[in-house]
Amino acid sequence: MAPAIEAAPLNELRAVLGNQIAVDAYRAGTQPFPDGTVLVKLAWKQTPSTEFAPATVPGAATTVQVMVKDQKKYAATGGWGFGRFIDGKPVDAAQHETCWTCHEARAKAQDYVFTRFAP
Amino acid sequence: MAPAIEAAPLNELRAVLGNQIAVDAYRAGTQPFPDGTVLVKLAWKQTPSTEFAPATVPGAATTVQVMVKDQKKYAATGGWGFGRFIDGKPVDAAQHETCWTCHEARAKAQDYVFTRFAP
Repeated sequence: MAPAIEAAPLNELRAVLGNQIAVDAYRAGTQPFPDGTVLVKLAWKQTPSTEFAPATVPGAATTVQVMVKDQKKYAATGGWGFGRFIDGKPVDAAQHETCWTCHEARAKAQDYVFTRFAP
Repeated sequence: MAPAIEAAPLNELRAVLGNQIAVDAYRAGTQPFPDGTVLVKLAWKQTPSTEFAPATVPGAATTVQVMVKDQKKYAATGGWGFGRFIDGKPVDAAQHETCWTCHEARAKAQDYVFTRFAP
C-alpha cells in the first residue's frame, strides 16, 4: 500500500500493507477506520543494490508491526491494538507501550495512523 | 512485495508488486518466471513526513512500470514485455527500448528481474 524510508539510526526501508477493510476505508476516505481494520508494517535494513548502484533495497528483516482496530477491546488506546514482533516473537510490554504514546501525540488527526494511502 | 529507494536525480520511493504467479514463483524460487508473471513497479517522489521527522514517504506519483512474461510474444527480449506509463499513458517507443537494454545487461542471472522477494 505504501513504502517509507526511516532515517538513521534505524536506516530502514518499510512497507505498510492493509487488509481489504483497511484498503476500502483508505479509498473511501472513511475516518475513523472501522473495526476489523488491520495494518501491517514490514521493515528491513537499507542495503545497496548489487545490480544497480542508484537503488537501495531491502536487507535483513528487522521488525513486523501491527495495528488492529477494535473499538471495544482497545478503547483505552483510540480503538487500536498495537503489536511489535522481532523474529516472529512479540516484544515486551514496555516496548508495546511506546507505540500508543507516539501515535496519540502525532497522528490524532488521521485516527492515529501515520500511513496515508499511496495509489 | 518489495520497496526500494532510488537515489538522485530521481529521488524516488518505489514499491514492486506481483500477481499470484509472480509471488508463487518467488516463494518457490522458480527460474525462469513462468508465462503469465506480471510485475508492477509504482514510483513516487520522496517527501518528508509532516508528522514524523525521521520518515520519508510517498509524494507525487511519477511512473508505473510493468513487466509481463510471455516467452513466445516477447521472445526477442528474454520473454519479457516492458511497459512504462506516466499519468496513465504509455511513454514512447524510444523510452521503452531502454528497459530491455538495462535489464539484459545487469539482471540476466535472475531472469532479467532486478527485484528480489522481500518476505
